[in-house]
Amino acid sequence: MWLDRSARVGYGSVMAEINRQWRLAARPKGMIRDSDFRWVEEPVAAELADGEILVRTLVLSVDPTQRGWMERDTYVPAVRIDEVMRAGGVGRVVRSNAEGFSPGELVTGTVGWQDYAVLPAKGVYKLPPGVDPETALSIFGLTGLTAYFGLLEIGRPEAGQTVVVSGAAGATGMTASQIAKLKGCRVVGIAGGPEKKRFLLDELGLDGAIDYKAENVTARLGELCPSGIDVFFDNVGGPMLEAALANLAMHARIVLCGAIAQYNDMTGASGPRNYMNLLLRRGRMEGFIVTDFAPRFGEAMRDLGAWLAEGKIVNRVDVVEGLENAPSALRGLFTGANLGKRLLRVSA
Amino acid sequence: MWLDRSARVGYGSVMAEINRQWRLAARPKGMIRDSDFRWVEEPVAAELADGEILVRTLVLSVDPTQRGWMERDTYVPAVRIDEVMRAGGVGRVVRSNAEGFSPGELVTGTVGWQDYAVLPAKGVYKLPPGVDPETALSIFGLTGLTAYFGLLEIGRPEAGQTVVVSGAAGATGMTASQIAKLKGCRVVGIAGGPEKKRFLLDELGLDGAIDYKAENVTARLGELCPSGIDVFFDNVGGPMLEAALANLAMHARIVLCGAIAQYNDMTGASGPRNYMNLLLRRGRMEGFIVTDFAPRFGEAMRDLGAWLAEGKIVNRVDVVEGLENAPSALRGLFTGANLGKRLLRVSA
Repeated sequence: MWLDRSARVGYGSVMAEINRQWRLAARPKGMIRDSDFRWVEEPVAAELADGEILVRTLVLSVDPTQRGWMERDTYVPAVRIDEVMRAGGVGRVVRSNAEGFSPGELVTGTVGWQDYAVLPAKGVYKLPPGVDPETALSIFGLTGLTAYFGLLEIGRPEAGQTVVVSGAAGATGMTASQIAKLKGCRVVGIAGGPEKKRFLLDELGLDGAIDYKAENVTARLGELCPSGIDVFFDNVGGPMLEAALANLAMHARIVLCGAIAQYNDMTGASGPRNYMNLLLRRGRMEGFIVTDFAPRFGEAMRDLGAWLAEGKIVNRVDVVEGLENAPSALRGLFTGANLGKRLLRVSA
Repeated sequence: MWLDRSARVGYGSVMAEINRQWRLAARPKGMIRDSDFRWVEEPVAAELADGEILVRTLVLSVDPTQRGWMERDTYVPAVRIDEVMRAGGVGRVVRSNAEGFSPGELVTGTVGWQDYAVLPAKGVYKLPPGVDPETALSIFGLTGLTAYFGLLEIGRPEAGQTVVVSGAAGATGMTASQIAKLKGCRVVGIAGGPEKKRFLLDELGLDGAIDYKAENVTARLGELCPSGIDVFFDNVGGPMLEAALANLAMHARIVLCGAIAQYNDMTGASGPRNYMNLLLRRGRMEGFIVTDFAPRFGEAMRDLGAWLAEGKIVNRVDVVEGLENAPSALRGLFTGANLGKRLLRVSA
């Protein structure tokens, strides 16, 4: 059933090409289920309007925020029922009806959970020379940029200060942790399980790591951050946020990046009971959306590219193979299955 | 039993003077009870150390934060068991062993729940000429200064923006509301009961008012703030904070000034379940303690004094008579009994 029929069809027989898709079938209730999506196979679009390109999907980005898009309007409108599930990704241009785009070029844009996407050329970006799809969607993707602007512009850590990152072995967390390290901070990461803890200490070189599945996070933060937390970069919410609030330094900054612990149960979500520690510690808790910084993405990519080239930060991707596995790849983010940036490879 | 015996004793017979006191007897559990305090009558101190003054208490400040002082260390150490209950107030110098202080002068300082206090002169301030004790403890007191710095330095409202204040008929709230008005903002106040609502609209001249006991605050905020809340000055916490979070404008600021709804039940306190709206709206929630701004109190008092003199802000005090009523005067803050700044008159 999961044979990639589209892959068997050459460029010469466009009309016969099949576009496999996952469309949204239902608004999710609680954890994402396969039945929230519907598998569709339809012919690849034959016509391109002026300014459009046809793209063959290579790699898709798998992000916690996609769970929100399935359910309701947030900072972007919800995916409509029966619409192809929305996702950023990298694809290769197959046909072009847009000036400046030629077949074979790699572009990144909102290609969605499908083999082929028709996209307005002005909504995509060409990959810079030498950047592969995996790096484009991780360090140079929205997760890397989120780490960059969230940490540096909202958290504003100073050298010598203590930075704590939750979800530190995930895509945004690992990047934020490493940027904090290279800015001269003492960095403690929180993640689930011994493998991730080892990754934080041995591969990222953090100053401390906490396995929240095995350790008392509040108590361990107290031990590892004796002068308190100056910046807490929160990807998780829930008990992680409360543990950090209990250990704030004076004038601490909490960067609200995500609340993955709560995305599957927003109605029953609980707020941080000890939020008034923000008053006692003269702290600040602030949210942001990375796209607000779009005019400065170039600046961030130059920094990130230089750090990567100099070996000051490492990248780690977690690739799931096959479009058919998109629902389970997304679901896995919420059970902590990924280590590093999760991607879905649709085509080589 | 509650005869003010100290008042019957003239200055000539110092040794016979009685100092009535309320001392802390127990850490409160839940709502404050009379039995949390112990009534003591003892002779007024006969000796003053170098640099000390003896002060006759005239008026005491009654503040929600005093509930916190009874229970645990916060931004100041907790009141010790058997210590005189801590409170700011205004008194008249009776005797002085400190240079620059003479009998008859009015001073403000931490006099506590008692008729007479021995205070280090360097811990008190003389009242400026023409300022009566009631005004010194309200507009020029910590509540007025809290409103000033919390609104202007943390909230930073701009002319034309929408400011919402909870506990708007209380000491800090009424001042914050009026400062926001004179800065050109559209101001909506939240308070409990029709009398307070009328006060907000008719006496403070706010643009809108919500009686949280009779109205659906979330829905009413939506109606009264059609373009969202730019600054929420929160004295209350709990459902008020959630209602404001549900109605934030982009880049909103939440000023955490207090959480009076929760002071009597901190362990069972719930956090704002919809705090992630800070992310969607790129908002910021920030706490502060007014004493951090102490070097700038003079500047604030000049502004507040000028506004008061020009009639741009009005003051409203709610005076309870008699030291014996101190426990119930404090308790009343948590049932919303006060309209304006609550004070306790101990002596004329």
